[in-house]
Amino acid sequence: MPKISKKGMQMPESPIRKLVPYADKAKKAGRKVYHLNIGQPDIETPEIALNAIRNFSQKVVEYSHSAGIYSYRQKLTEYYKRYDIDITPEEIVVGAGASEALLFAINTCLDPGDELIIGEPFYANYNGFAINAGAVVKPIISTIDSGFALPPISEFEKAINERTRAILVCNPNNPTGYLYSKEELEILRDIVKKYDLYLITDEVYREFVYDGLQHYSAMYLKGIEENVILIDSVSKRYSACGFRVGCLITRNKEVLKTALKFAQARLSPPTFGQVGAEAAIDTPKEYFVRVLEEYHARRDVVMESINSMPGAFCPKPKGAFYVVARLPIDDSDRFCKWLLEDFHYNNETVMLAPATGFYSHPSKGKDEVRISYVLKVEELKKAMKCLEEALKVYPGQTN
Amino acid sequence: MPKISKKGMQMPESPIRKLVPYADKAKKAGRKVYHLNIGQPDIETPEIALNAIRNFSQKVVEYSHSAGIYSYRQKLTEYYKRYDIDITPEEIVVGAGASEALLFAINTCLDPGDELIIGEPFYANYNGFAINAGAVVKPIISTIDSGFALPPISEFEKAINERTRAILVCNPNNPTGYLYSKEELEILRDIVKKYDLYLITDEVYREFVYDGLQHYSAMYLKGIEENVILIDSVSKRYSACGFRVGCLITRNKEVLKTALKFAQARLSPPTFGQVGAEAAIDTPKEYFVRVLEEYHARRDVVMESINSMPGAFCPKPKGAFYVVARLPIDDSDRFCKWLLEDFHYNNETVMLAPATGFYSHPSKGKDEVRISYVLKVEELKKAMKCLEEALKVYPGQTN
Repeated sequence: MPKISKKGMQMPESPIRKLVPYADKAKKAGRKVYHLNIGQPDIETPEIALNAIRNFSQKVVEYSHSAGIYSYRQKLTEYYKRYDIDITPEEIVVGAGASEALLFAINTCLDPGDELIIGEPFYANYNGFAINAGAVVKPIISTIDSGFALPPISEFEKAINERTRAILVCNPNNPTGYLYSKEELEILRDIVKKYDLYLITDEVYREFVYDGLQHYSAMYLKGIEENVILIDSVSKRYSACGFRVGCLITRNKEVLKTALKFAQARLSPPTFGQVGAEAAIDTPKEYFVRVLEEYHARRDVVMESINSMPGAFCPKPKGAFYVVARLPIDDSDRFCKWLLEDFHYNNETVMLAPATGFYSHPSKGKDEVRISYVLKVEELKKAMKCLEEALKVYPGQTN
Repeated sequence: MPKISKKGMQMPESPIRKLVPYADKAKKAGRKVYHLNIGQPDIETPEIALNAIRNFSQKVVEYSHSAGIYSYRQKLTEYYKRYDIDITPEEIVVGAGASEALLFAINTCLDPGDELIIGEPFYANYNGFAINAGAVVKPIISTIDSGFALPPISEFEKAINERTRAILVCNPNNPTGYLYSKEELEILRDIVKKYDLYLITDEVYREFVYDGLQHYSAMYLKGIEENVILIDSVSKRYSACGFRVGCLITRNKEVLKTALKFAQARLSPPTFGQVGAEAAIDTPKEYFVRVLEEYHARRDVVMESINSMPGAFCPKPKGAFYVVARLPIDDSDRFCKWLLEDFHYNNETVMLAPATGFYSHPSKGKDEVRISYVLKVEELKKAMKCLEEALKVYPGQTN
């Protein structure tokens, strides 16, 4: 039997996925499982987007342009103008989700062995994309005690060497919910400029910002226009994960030209998702007001509940719909499995993501979990109650 | 400005795309351009598939399973049973087109520097996918004089070394239309077995087989079940290129497990495309009978027309909807550009694909073009007339 590639062997398996069989078992045993483990929103996809897909009237579902349907890219420029981001349709390459756009970006900027700096904890699949491209992730730790703020410049400078090509930042952050300030982005700008690096900025949670704060896009930074590559997606914005539509945006013509070559090789992004995404840009403002209120309330439930549990701690996340919480537990993988396998409260339990999956060092994140607040407030409250009761009886608790 | 990756620099630009501005100019000048340059069928997508998409009733368009919607994979097993290919839903990983499925296969089997043998001329994007994965294409030439038959075993053995990991075959073939026989596939089986290689078999044109012949799938080969990876797509079968739905199928559990890790990193394939593709499996048989008759007639028009032109030659292709023809010209890139820029007959011209794009050596394919017969017979006849007249006056003709 021929061998599997080394790259394939290195591809990580998500610690969340390892838990799926235990969740299935719990459900088979008749238990209700609250899913706080994934970033799949429960919010309805805007009708305006679904209707556009229902009304698709072409007789032949053709390949679209490799960079995406032109009318969609035009409409996207309108969307970005609302955020004072001035771009042209030619500066956009549409991908099958932010995932593919990120692969285009990494393949365009990094060769095998090149290094990509990412603040840890980070979205687990970043590592998968890097391995896919043969690139190496160089993590810089941010800690729960500082609320997951940007690490000091000195940490970046320690990590930079002749193989460093890019810094990747997710803002607002998955998994921490951290919202980077203008000042923090300016620090990144200075580093990027000094070492002539790419700044890949994943801003798929742009709309999910709380406490009346404003999101500050890396696209606003002056003097590094050729360095910034914006990654975006409609998955969370319009609760349209199945559309598989994201994009790469940059003012760097060489990056655009190269990303387009990768895009041409795979022919085109999905047509129906683009049709829906184009219509979604006209989603009424009230939709977002309602969604934001909902997530704001959910965040408060999670944060307040966690912080009232003895030995537990959760910083106040200002964006996205995740928190990373510290719990009084010995091993988050073991705890999350135990929740599904051995625990229930009123015949209910909760599925969380062990934070170990968001760190590159196996020793990190052992007393942390990521909670996605993608359930309605009433359900979230019950889920938090479950967690509270679980922490009282978990055999590996450290309180 | 930071550098572009070497890999990005190596990514090929398609010679067809270079012609697009000239086609646009010809159209602006009021000329009709017959597009024989692309594999975009003009056949209508089956209504049954479009209706399934129109009737999509879920309120939230969620991520599907990373390996594809389960009911779709189940339905796919039914489709393959019609061709005596017995597989389970667990042996399928759905991708965003054959393109993504191929990337999964190459990344799973080949590390940077590993070699992939492909019979030349070949589908240009194979090279792009290989570069994407850091792998190296080792071409084996098949010639127009032998009708693009499989080269002799000795050619394969000359190409195999310690870095060889896989042979990739496209059957029926794009760009040549060649249909590999059972005997040729058994030769491939013997080589694959002897050197313990993967056999990646792209069978997206399975249904497009003429002259009453039968397609022989590499999945039928005995004794190399763990070596064969089938790549498939709904793009051509149901004229549904914009669905972006393909798949990877194998009985090799390690390959499946690894391909799934790549699939999990990008979360899921497009939902609407899968919904349409699932319904399309119930497309009435008559659809294919009609489509096949249509393509059969088109092939005959192209083949007979070419072979009646002085100094031109076209083997009789038995599958897909392409032919590679030899023309009495000095340089196919120059000729195809000239057709758009300087030639018209009754204010009409024709856009062809220079065959140079399907060879890895820049010296090859200079007197060959690929013709996609994706137009109706009446239009094809006019396009062939254009070509005939063009050959009479082309300044670089070699007759």
